Amino acid sequence: MKILVIGATGTIGKAVADRLSNQHEVIATGYRDGDVTVDLGNAESIKAMFEKTGPVDAVVSTAGLANFGPLSEQSDADYTLALNNKLMGQVNLIRIGRDFVTNHGSITLTSGILSRQPMPGSASISMANGALESYVKAAALELENIRVNVVAPAFVKETMEMMGMDSTYGVSAVDTSIAYDVAVNGDMHGETLDVTDYL
Amino acid sequence: MKILVIGATGTIGKAVADRLSNQHEVIATGYRDGDVTVDLGNAESIKAMFEKTGPVDAVVSTAGLANFGPLSEQSDADYTLALNNKLMGQVNLIRIGRDFVTNHGSITLTSGILSRQPMPGSASISMANGALESYVKAAALELENIRVNVVAPAFVKETMEMMGMDSTYGVSAVDTSIAYDVAVNGDMHGETLDVTDYL
Repeated sequence: MKILVIGATGTIGKAVADRLSNQHEVIATGYRDGDVTVDLGNAESIKAMFEKTGPVDAVVSTAGLANFGPLSEQSDADYTLALNNKLMGQVNLIRIGRDFVTNHGSITLTSGILSRQPMPGSASISMANGALESYVKAAALELENIRVNVVAPAFVKETMEMMGMDSTYGVSAVDTSIAYDVAVNGDMHGETLDVTDYL
Repeated sequence: MKILVIGATGTIGKAVADRLSNQHEVIATGYRDGDVTVDLGNAESIKAMFEKTGPVDAVVSTAGLANFGPLSEQSDADYTLALNNKLMGQVNLIRIGRDFVTNHGSITLTSGILSRQPMPGSASISMANGALESYVKAAALELENIRVNVVAPAFVKETMEMMGMDSTYGVSAVDTSIAYDVAVNGDMHGETLDVTDYL
């Protein structure tokens, strides 16, 4: 398969691209670096990306921006970022990408465990994640030629270490990549795959 | 209690306002009609509403616009409406309203069963509903002086009849109003109340 991995320069994305490239051809995509670049917050940029790559058999997104921060300090701009980038950026991968994914192909997005297990500071991220999980479940009912799913990672060990947090209960990027592999090579449609269910 | 009911001119809102007014003082709010008016899609309008009403003991929203329609026909404007009105309009009731709700008061929003039980045509509505349920769960972790919850109505019998649908499995507006009563008078915080659990 020819697989477009969006966010391939990030911690999870790199592990996903590495894993999938054992058996497939991966087109690595990032905001600044990669075989192709894309600004997820800009629908025109998403269109341009797909026009450059042409048809692909699968799309995997591990991208999408949103800010962590106290509820009382989250600004309108923080909400706009979560909605325009993490949420609509990925929703637009389905809306635009469905015309570029081959028959029986798939699109896999990324939410996160904070949708259902929030923590203080996660409100706008939890909001975007919950939206993605419900959206994919609904959209799947109307998508017959491609499968769409969303992977919900737990906290990633490498990210926690980078932020100086105790990473004891973190899941490594390599282990996180398993659920993406399952979503791409499996037959689920409209589902949320919790990373911790696939370890 | 002094309770602000937003969307009080709608099918559910009217039943909620009627029910709560048996024991409480209700300020009925609508887009065009009501004791006060508000445009939920406009944060300035929400601020102006609270400045007019002054402190209230509870806020109940049964409002929020989003369009039903085939995935392939949903436009950018349909997504924007769902995000700016149904989602951020209600999120802003918490962000702005928290300063106007008295200690131990509450804010109750409205999502809908389509977040977890979608149907063809519901993608942007399901997205907004899922976002609201995750947001309220997360925001509750940081709100100590007020309670926030979201009620998820099933299909409302009167609305189904108005749309010419078979309403056999619909829940009447009066029955739907019970879950709102529970959210206002109960002690839950950060929860999604499925209307069908309170019949």
